[in-house]
Parts: sequence; C-alpha cells; structure tokens
Amino acid sequence: MELPEPPYYAVIFTSQRTDGDNGYAERAAAMSKLAAQQPGYLGELSVREDSGAGITVSYWKDEESIARWRANLEHTEARRQGRAEWYVDYEVQVSRVERAYDFRR
Amino acid sequence: MELPEPPYYAVIFTSQRTDGDNGYAERAAAMSKLAAQQPGYLGELSVREDSGAGITVSYWKDEESIARWRANLEHTEARRQGRAEWYVDYEVQVSRVERAYDFRR
Repeated sequence: MELPEPPYYAVIFTSQRTDGDNGYAERAAAMSKLAAQQPGYLGELSVREDSGAGITVSYWKDEESIARWRANLEHTEARRQGRAEWYVDYEVQVSRVERAYDFRR
Repeated sequence: MELPEPPYYAVIFTSQRTDGDNGYAERAAAMSKLAAQQPGYLGELSVREDSGAGITVSYWKDEESIARWRANLEHTEARRQGRAEWYVDYEVQVSRVERAYDFRR
C-alpha cells in the first residue's frame, strides 16, 4: 500500500463475527467504498479467518478525518447494525503512526 | 484482550506469506511465546487468511520495549529468515495508541 511518510493515523479494528452473513458482506463492501471517498483516507487492509476472527486497519491523514468519518450517518448506522447483528465483540484502537518500513521481494 | 488505558504502543505487521510452510509455523509460535516474555509486552492478535494475507498487531508499553524486542538476537534471526523464506512482502507501522474502545455482546 502506498502510504505517506509518518506521522499519519491508523485505526485498528479487531473483531469476531457472529455466525451467518445477515447482510454483512454487502454492507461491509459498501462501507469500504464509502470510506475510500472520504477526505483524509489513505488506505485499508482487512483480513478475516474462516473462524470469524478479523483485523482491519484503516489509515488516515489526521484525527479530524477519523472524527468526520465516524460522524458520517451511513457509517454510524452500519456501526449500530454491527453491534446488533454482525459482531460478537470488537476492539478499536486509534493510533498515531510514528514510523514505518517495509520489505518487498 | 486486556489492555491498559492509553497511551501505549501498537506494532502493526501486515504481510503476504510465500507458498509452503518452510518451518514458519513452528518458528512463528516460538517467537510469539518469546515476545510474551519480554518486558513491556501487553498482548498480540494475529489473523491470516488461506490466501496467505495476514495482519498481526502486538501491543507494547512503550517505545523502549519495542526497541529491546527488535534487538533480541533470536528475533533478529527470525526476521532475517522471514525475508529470506517466509514473506513475499510485509509492512510494519509502529504507532502510539491515543484512545481505544470496545464492544462485547
């Protein structure tokens, strides 16, 4: 992923899905697409095992971008539905990336 | 996961595995166990899809704990082997967690 030089922000979302889809896949794809249109969005990586355990990291320019996305009405409604239907539990950490490096074969 | 009140640190490791195990599973388990014994270690979450895409987040008390673990000789050797054999590519971000919240059903 192409990210700028630090500092920037990472929102770490670790979660356990409930059984069954219940509209999750479609809504999650729509939310990723909508997030990508927001000012300050830098990128997202998401991994989920068959067990339902998942980690999504989204990257943002600054705290203001994160706060604006959090206040988005469609996103707020999706989070409400997430708590009602899609997740057994989740944790969110909002963090400031201080340094970064990568390896490419 | 039981984490303290922020601030603390998160090391975000996103990676793509090469094909085949090549000793990876055993060494990765040993490294997780060794990391958990280090001063300042707070916890770790790791998720990998069948595609080989993975995200591991490890949590640390402070930057000093991260630097000490990075300098550990067994860990340094495991990282070298990772670049030689186990990973197509990876990215690491060292970040300071500013705030956190969770949901539990």
